[in-house]
Formats: sequence, structure tokens, C-alpha cells
Amino acid sequence: MNGFDLTINNLLETAVMNNGDQKIVYMDRSLTYKEFYKNAMNLSKNLIKIGVNRKDVIAVIDYDSLMYMYGYYSIPMIGAVMHTVNIRYPPEIIFYTMQRADDSYIMIDEVFMDLIVKNAAYLNFIKGIIVNSKDHKHFDINIPVYYFDDLLKDSDLEFKEPDENDTATLFFTSGTTGLPKGVSFTHRQLVLHSIASIGALSNEPIKYNINDVVMPLVPMFHVHAWGIPYTSIMNGIKYVLPGKYDIPRILETMNKEKVSMSAMVPTILYMLISDKNAKQLLQDLNLKVIIGGAALSRGLAERARAYGIDVVSGYGMSETAPILTLAVYNRKVINKSDEEKFEFRLKTGIPIPMVSLRVVNNNKDVENNGKEIGEIIVRAPWLTNGYIKDKEKSEELWKDGWLHTGDLAVIDEYGYIKIVDREKDAIKSGGEFIPSLILEDLISTIQGVNEVAVVAKADDKWGERPVAFINGNASLDEIKIKMSEFVDTGRIAKFWVPDDFIFVNEMPKTSTGKIDKKVLRDKLR
Amino acid sequence: MNGFDLTINNLLETAVMNNGDQKIVYMDRSLTYKEFYKNAMNLSKNLIKIGVNRKDVIAVIDYDSLMYMYGYYSIPMIGAVMHTVNIRYPPEIIFYTMQRADDSYIMIDEVFMDLIVKNAAYLNFIKGIIVNSKDHKHFDINIPVYYFDDLLKDSDLEFKEPDENDTATLFFTSGTTGLPKGVSFTHRQLVLHSIASIGALSNEPIKYNINDVVMPLVPMFHVHAWGIPYTSIMNGIKYVLPGKYDIPRILETMNKEKVSMSAMVPTILYMLISDKNAKQLLQDLNLKVIIGGAALSRGLAERARAYGIDVVSGYGMSETAPILTLAVYNRKVINKSDEEKFEFRLKTGIPIPMVSLRVVNNNKDVENNGKEIGEIIVRAPWLTNGYIKDKEKSEELWKDGWLHTGDLAVIDEYGYIKIVDREKDAIKSGGEFIPSLILEDLISTIQGVNEVAVVAKADDKWGERPVAFINGNASLDEIKIKMSEFVDTGRIAKFWVPDDFIFVNEMPKTSTGKIDKKVLRDKLR
Repeated sequence: MNGFDLTINNLLETAVMNNGDQKIVYMDRSLTYKEFYKNAMNLSKNLIKIGVNRKDVIAVIDYDSLMYMYGYYSIPMIGAVMHTVNIRYPPEIIFYTMQRADDSYIMIDEVFMDLIVKNAAYLNFIKGIIVNSKDHKHFDINIPVYYFDDLLKDSDLEFKEPDENDTATLFFTSGTTGLPKGVSFTHRQLVLHSIASIGALSNEPIKYNINDVVMPLVPMFHVHAWGIPYTSIMNGIKYVLPGKYDIPRILETMNKEKVSMSAMVPTILYMLISDKNAKQLLQDLNLKVIIGGAALSRGLAERARAYGIDVVSGYGMSETAPILTLAVYNRKVINKSDEEKFEFRLKTGIPIPMVSLRVVNNNKDVENNGKEIGEIIVRAPWLTNGYIKDKEKSEELWKDGWLHTGDLAVIDEYGYIKIVDREKDAIKSGGEFIPSLILEDLISTIQGVNEVAVVAKADDKWGERPVAFINGNASLDEIKIKMSEFVDTGRIAKFWVPDDFIFVNEMPKTSTGKIDKKVLRDKLR
Repeated sequence: MNGFDLTINNLLETAVMNNGDQKIVYMDRSLTYKEFYKNAMNLSKNLIKIGVNRKDVIAVIDYDSLMYMYGYYSIPMIGAVMHTVNIRYPPEIIFYTMQRADDSYIMIDEVFMDLIVKNAAYLNFIKGIIVNSKDHKHFDINIPVYYFDDLLKDSDLEFKEPDENDTATLFFTSGTTGLPKGVSFTHRQLVLHSIASIGALSNEPIKYNINDVVMPLVPMFHVHAWGIPYTSIMNGIKYVLPGKYDIPRILETMNKEKVSMSAMVPTILYMLISDKNAKQLLQDLNLKVIIGGAALSRGLAERARAYGIDVVSGYGMSETAPILTLAVYNRKVINKSDEEKFEFRLKTGIPIPMVSLRVVNNNKDVENNGKEIGEIIVRAPWLTNGYIKDKEKSEELWKDGWLHTGDLAVIDEYGYIKIVDREKDAIKSGGEFIPSLILEDLISTIQGVNEVAVVAKADDKWGERPVAFINGNASLDEIKIKMSEFVDTGRIAKFWVPDDFIFVNEMPKTSTGKIDKKVLRDKLR
């Protein structure tokens, strides 16, 4: 009798009941949750009308638009699957993922249509394309085209709601090594991820609440934009969609909409505060920013503080929906001084509710001493069951019933995890790990260092030795003096000091904006 | 592969991983979550050893003790069912509920053993009794007796964990009319109720967080003590168990343990602040108190404020696990003045996450105007599926796929619900509802009124007319003057003024401490 499944349908319906007049803002448009719900339901129904069936996969190709937000809801609500396509992949990889995902429809903005029209030959498995085009532009393609705004028109079709264990979303991991791997998530997983996130985000210093205005700067194709499109609506928060990441316009929108909360990778934060108007536009916002996707360096965090930005680290993976930890304050830390607390925000954090997390070395949990390094393994109700069409890698991921993150970390006496390396990025010199993230963190604090990456170089004697790539105008002498200081003050071991410091004008980046260490390692061969 | 069920087992395991050194306090004992977990696991295993099977029901009969806390975890963790027996029922009703619940074991403190020993003849369906008795006292009874502390001894038995849809708890509703009705809840329902509660409690003015020390004063036999034994452990909060409700000792414990958060029915709050040492012991605590079980009157809330107590209303039922709403601030209210916000805390509140709530009159949602009265109907992932062994009442409860609360309410323009009456307590005069709770709320503010209840009296002309019962030393003249004022200032309609004001020395109470209006109505016959 009591049929309340953990579905996106129920999440949205309840949110609209409780906060129907809260707003969603995109460019010059502003609509209430209630209006959004009405449109989303119409889109759901009209998708069925044009032929979309349960379990059909719809590829969404767009910037962070209002259409994308509808996709997050309307597609899963009819039991179909939203494939959030990584638009930063090269075309061949995009088509590879679309084929591997068994996409049958595409929802796309007209600005990306060139890509599709030119490559229609590779897309013979696509049954229809839904295009957002204000003027209903004509496209020369042999696949049926529907216009997005037509699909928002009133419809009174009735449809069966999905089960909570139906797949809702799928996407591909950024794949720094080899071809991207697909992961999928069910309605239930997304709802549980949202409700647990709300619990964690309510802690100091984030205190995410109904007075916040959120504008995530995590692309919507990237791990559910860290769940924020679901978490925030569930929590009744005003949501501002950024569109294409045009930094000056984003800063102006933040200022105009009084954005109080955002989330982004360090690179975007770096770009935001490097804009000439950043100080003027940001300083009154007291912006809280969740940083994830890559480690938050102390240098960047300190620079952000000067702009009134409070940063907090988070941690997760494509495989984990994504949030596993947040560097909010626990009871052992909350009464420390502001300066001390700042240190904790730079750590990887503490597990959010319902996350079981261990750091293990040779099948044994490491000591909480901030020194012993082990791999992070996790259990939680929202982890992917495995990789699409890849049994072997799925079993590897889930060996012994725990998801193996491949991230190396330590835990301190306060229970905070700090990632010291990716297992595959690890540098092993003379049989000892050299934690590249700790080195990068320290080097980032040196005047004139904008970005830094430390990678392994093959070495006959030691196996591997660290080399640092630096983007910035720091002087090599100054860096070497600082490195000696770090050694003298006991912050790093002498053998950790990189053998070389190589200056570059630009860092190679992966499709999700992280520094691509694979490319850097290749340069050293 | 990804076997993370929403079970009490996983809830506890994760809590211990994340906050293993947090404390649980009972009388002169204090133990860490980690120690609690070890003991709870041993108890689980030893319960299996003495013969407890999956799905067996264990009746717990005790005050709010540490043993009870173990029961909340150890019993469901092996797939057995905890029956929280209402110790305020008369013995015949207790045995009726135990039989109807199919109890097969009893977990009990020695102070209650008299009841069992004397009535052993009625308990031939019980296979074993686990007694908490420090001196292993002998009991003259023909049922196997085990001693609680023996069952905490180390055991290395392995057992299969329950499924999230297995029943974890059951208990009986207080039953102001007719025999008590049984309701049950699954692991999944309890876990979802906990995580949603954390989300709601994180809002202003409660801001429940890791710095809190909680001491619930809701009996553990009463609707999972409103879920606090699960919610608080999940949230990593210091937990103080009150034992038997001895007001002076409770006040001293609150002071000593620096309790910052509690939950109780209005009667208990009234008793707490009526103690002669209340002011001295409470005033530095800034105690936050959730009030539920009955409406919070303005008079009591104002008196509590003088003791540094911030009260917030909550609402729920036995059938709903229980929490449905909390009177925390939403974004429309949070920026109002403190005086205005105080008014909102007295309301029934706003739905917590994942609760769909409607107020309907003749199958139509009422307007958000604070005037139109309808019945509250709800959906949420933690509502009971129905009454034990009572198909007819279950169907009535769940007609049209919504749980019908039987509570009459209005919604204001801010989205806050305010219950104006129980459907069965409603007074209908000349075809119009007279909301007894609004009358009681106003009368409670009159000097010298300690408790008040307004009930219906049969009337030849009007059908029913209101009569007020009052406990206190107010003068009848003063009351009548105030009632005229309430009418003159438009706060109540003239025809709402009770025909009679009857003074009593004590209010009749139900087993859960609510005023028993049925007894009062009977007095008027």
C-alpha cells in the first residue's frame, strides 16, 4: 500500500510541494519550482509521445543550461536513462561512448549540432534528435529532428513511474588511462546520495541552507555535477544555472544573483579569482566553495580567502556518484582557532553519512597517525555496481565487497583523511612512496607558482624520481631555497625534493579540467 | 556486488567507523560508540545462542536504560523484531499487546519482574526472559531466565545480516479509543527516517550538530523515542540516557552533562520547569527542545523561554515512525524578527525531506490562507504499511494511496501547517468546526492556567458546544474577561467561547502523557 519509492519523481514532487515558489534561474529567465515541474512533466510525456521507451538511453549534449536541468529530471522520470555526454572529449571518443552506452536519442543545443550533422554516418543507431533551437533551424540530417520547446507543450498523457532500482543516469569516467569506462546509477542511489549530502553539507563551515543561492561550476556532464542539481532542489534552494563557462559573465551573474555557494575544480577557482573584476564582484558574497576533482592546494585556498571565498575540500569519484567525504568540521576540530580549522578544510575530509570508509595497507587498517599510507576503500548505498560491459574491471573495482578507489591516503588523529596520491600517479623512490600531492601543496605556496604537478621519472638507481612541472613566474633559485627550508623544517624528507623543476606556459588538462599527469610523464620519457 | 542495504547494522557500523570515540552516557557509566558496538554485537550473537531466531519478536520492558539502547540495535541486527512495550498500559493491555505481537522473548529490568512472575500463566507463549539484574536475583517462574550481563560476554558466532525490508521494530499506538493497534517498521524505514531527520534538524533554530549533547525525554517505548536513538548515533552525537523519569535527577544530569538538546511532550516540559531547581540547573544550557505528542501551547513556550529553553514543535504519529513535520524556519520566515519567528515555532511546522504532505477537504487541497481546514494526508518512505492483524483499519488508514492522519489542519501563506484539531476530538457547532487547539492555545496564556482542554458537549440546539477544563488557580472572572478580549480583537469567533469552564485538580492522561479528552467528554455526559 505504502508505495513511496526512492525515485527522482518523488524527490521532485516533494520538493515542489514544500518549496513550489522557490526559483531556478538561467540567463534572463527565472522560473519557480512549480513552473519547472509543470514543464518537466510535459517534457516527460512528450518524450514518450515521440517514441522514447523505458530503459532507452538519451544522450544530453549541452553546456549547463536549463534544458540540461530538465534532462536531469524528465528523462529518468519516465524510466529512461540520461547519458551525460562529456563535451570535452574528442569527437571519436564521444561517438565511442554513445555507442557503448546504447544511446537511442540525443538531446542537444543547436550550437553542438555541427558535430552531429557532420558525423551522422556514425550515428545510425540514433532514432531521434531533440534540438534546442529558438528559431527551429533546419538541419540537414537523416535522423528525425524534434524541437525542444515543442516538447514542453501541455500533454495529458499518463505514464507509469519507474521503480527505484531502475537505472536513471550513466556517463563515462574521464579516463586518464585507456578508453573511458561507463558507470550507471539508479534512482535510489541518486536519492540516497542527495539526502546524505544534505546532512553533510549542513555542518560548519558550509551550513548549506534554505537561504543559500547555489551556482555550481561543475559541468553537468561531470558526475551529476556532484549531485547538486538533485541535492539543492530536494533542499529547496535557489538554483542558478551558469550556461557556458564564460568567466566574466559568470562573475557578473554571481554578483547579480547574490550567489552564496558554489562547487568547482581548483582550475575554475583559479580562473575566477584571476579575472580583473573578481575582487569587486565577489567580495560581498561570502562565497562558500566546495573544491573537488583534484586536491585543493594551500596556495590557492589562501589566495581565494582574499576574495572572501571560503573553500572546503570534497572527495569522490565517477564511480561513487560522487561524494564520499567533505572537509567539514567534526566535534574534535570545531573549537580550534580559525587558522587551525583552515588546515582541516584543505584535507580530503571526513565521510558523509552512510559512507563506510577505510584506509588499508596489506589488508590492514592504517593507524590514525597521519603517516601510514594506505588505499581508500569504501561502501555506501550509492556506489556504482560496476563498469558498463566490463566484467573484469568491475570485479577488480569491487574485490572483497569494497569499492577500491585506487587513491592513497593517510588518516590523522582527528579522523580526517588526506589523499597523498593516486595509486597510478604514485612515485616510488628506493622502495618508498613520495607523496606528490604533499609536494604540490607546498610548492604551490611559493610566490609566483600558479600551478604545479609532480610526476615520476624513470631512474636507473632509484626506480623512480620526482620531477616538478611549474606554471608561473617564480624563480628557480627561490624555489630551491624554499625546498631546502621545507626539508630543514621537517615538512618533507630530503629525498622527496624533485630532481628537476620544469617551467611550462600551460598545463595539459584532462577533459574534466584536471592536470593530465600522464601527458607530463610522457614528456619525461 | 555493491551490497549496502539500509539496515540498522550498516547504520551502526558506519557511525562507529566515523565517530568511534563519541560517548553514550547512562547513570554513572560512560562508554564509547566503539565499546557500545562491541557489546551490542556480543548481545546479538548471544541472543542467537539462547535460541532467538530471525523474525522472533522480543518484548523490551524497561525505563530508558542502556539495556534498552542495546535492544534498539542488537535485536534488529540479527533480523529479530524489537517490541517496545508501553509500560504505562494496565497489565491486561500489556499482555494483550504481547500476545498480539507474537512475542517469544522478553528483555526486562528486574524492577518490572513482579509483573511477569505474577502473571506467568498468561505468558505461556514466551520462550525465555532476559533479565537485567546485577546480583543475578532468582525468580520463581517456569520460563527459562537469562541474565543480561551474561549475554554481553565475548562471542565469536557468525550470523547473517538482515535484509533492509525485514521488520525491525513494532509497538502499539496509545489508543485513546478502543484497544491499541500494532504498527511495525522495517530497517529501511528506520534508516531513511533517521537520515531525513538529520537533514531537517540541521535547520535554524535547532541546528542539531556534532557539538550537541542529546538527552531525549521521550520514553523509548514511544514511537522509537521519535527516532532519536538512531538519528543521533548516525549523526555522531553524545547521547545521555535518562533512566526512569525522576525530574530532580534528570535536571541534575542535564546540568552535569551539559545537555544541549532534548525532546518531550508538553507535560514533561511543564514538569521540568516547575521543579524548584530548574532555573539554576537549566539556565546556562541554552537547551533546545523539540515538543511533540500534543500541541505546544503559547503559554508553556513563553514560560520555557524564561528558563533559557528554545522550543520547536514537531509532529508525527505512531503510524509514521514518527516525524512528519518540524517547525524549523524556512526561507520566508528566517529573516523575520525574533518575536515573529517565535510564533512559527508554535506551529505544527513544515514537512521534513522526503515527506509529501497535503491538507485536503473534500478531496481538494485547501488554500494556503491559514483559514480553510482540511485533513492532513501524507506519503513518505517510512510510513507503516498498516496495522498488525487488522486489514480493515489498515485499508482505512491508506485509502487512495495516502496515509490519512485524522488530524485537521490549516496551512498559512508561508507553508506552515497548524493542526487545529484531531478529527475525532473536533467540535462541530451549528455545522461549523470550532478548533479546540486554538482555544486551548489562547486560554493557556491566561495567568494561573497551567493546563487546559476544550472538548465537545452534546447540545440540543447546536449539536455540540465547547466546554473548557482547566487545571490551575486562575479566576473565572479573569478568564471570562480575557475571552471577551479575544473575541473583541478578532482572535476567535464569538461562538467559539466555551459555554462552561470547569476547574479540575488533575487532568486525566493517556499512557503517553497526553490529556485524555475521551475521559473529559465522558464527564460531560
